[in-house]
Amino acid sequence: MTINVITLFPEFFASPLKASLLGKAVASGIVQVNFVNPRDYSHNKHKKVDDTPYGGGAGMVMMVEPIALAVEAVKAKNPSTRVVLLSARGRLFNSGVVREYTQQGDITLICGHYEGVDERVAAHVADESLRLGNFVLSGGEVAALTVIDALARKEPGFMGNADSLAHESFDDGVSFEHAQYTRPEEWRGHRVPEILLSGNHAKIAAWRKEEAGKFSSGHGL
Amino acid sequence: MTINVITLFPEFFASPLKASLLGKAVASGIVQVNFVNPRDYSHNKHKKVDDTPYGGGAGMVMMVEPIALAVEAVKAKNPSTRVVLLSARGRLFNSGVVREYTQQGDITLICGHYEGVDERVAAHVADESLRLGNFVLSGGEVAALTVIDALARKEPGFMGNADSLAHESFDDGVSFEHAQYTRPEEWRGHRVPEILLSGNHAKIAAWRKEEAGKFSSGHGL
Repeated sequence: MTINVITLFPEFFASPLKASLLGKAVASGIVQVNFVNPRDYSHNKHKKVDDTPYGGGAGMVMMVEPIALAVEAVKAKNPSTRVVLLSARGRLFNSGVVREYTQQGDITLICGHYEGVDERVAAHVADESLRLGNFVLSGGEVAALTVIDALARKEPGFMGNADSLAHESFDDGVSFEHAQYTRPEEWRGHRVPEILLSGNHAKIAAWRKEEAGKFSSGHGL
Repeated sequence: MTINVITLFPEFFASPLKASLLGKAVASGIVQVNFVNPRDYSHNKHKKVDDTPYGGGAGMVMMVEPIALAVEAVKAKNPSTRVVLLSARGRLFNSGVVREYTQQGDITLICGHYEGVDERVAAHVADESLRLGNFVLSGGEVAALTVIDALARKEPGFMGNADSLAHESFDDGVSFEHAQYTRPEEWRGHRVPEILLSGNHAKIAAWRKEEAGKFSSGHGL
């Protein structure tokens, strides 16, 4: 899968794309992540990419033209890429969106920054706007990284064991992941559920099915 | 604010905590991020931190004891820290959780990895479990980084202009951010809404209020 990221801060992504499972996926070519910096497409002599908002207000707003030119540069190589603006005003990211994007095979993520992005990017440059959740971030980079991780792990070969993917999903906000336990059988007086030690695979499967969809709860140390 | 991160992959966080606004907040001490690696608390001679799941199944499960010892090391310095396990089985992260945690002032995020974390961490080590959204990630690090960013930007001094925070929020999944526009007035035939050029501050405020809560939509280039 190819993921293009349009960002003023490509250096943000350096260490996450090297660490852990995501790092391995990038190193092995399972996922290819390309960066395009709108600053390289600014015609302004100071490489300016933002300006004050029309109508007044705090902060700076990213200009449409450098972003549009960056998207056009991506499309010159990948004409069918789906262009997604990461924005608090977008539709909500979830496992359904993950399925859509992995089928698409090539997506382009635009990271907003500063006080926002000229609305003409959402209206006339991006194919859609997407928000990570009902919270605000300092920039789109954190959201882009989350989307990259969620997509990458769905690619064949990402996880050591393909079974891992088969047993998980989300539907309508309910996780189908069940509680997991490993050694020791008893930890500080708290035992693993006896059924998991029974060796009865049918009963274990039934317990896990019933248990999935429950949220974890407890109390701290 | 102090944020402690319990992770097998502290190197994941290196570049995001140096880049952009979040990098500035860390460098200036507005946010302090400490890392504790459960591997340093494994009593196993191979520094083992995971094992196979009871009851069978794919993947490996993180063991409770190294995580519990890491949390106890954090609590020795910060007894009142709130301990949060990042997990697909947790409650949903949103702007209300951001408010809670910023009032708390000191939180500890546990990053799960591999196929999951022994459920006794959720039940007996963490104060609560938290999920970033209705999707699955390869590890808790991406979720932790998102939480760090959302919390950090609420700290006094994070943004250049305090007004930026006053004008934004989320409530019941509806963003109160309005569309933003900057130069030029006309871009490839698409003009800025005339009202923003009118200089009539009362009308601009009314337009923005009405416009906030709408989602962005449009079509690509």
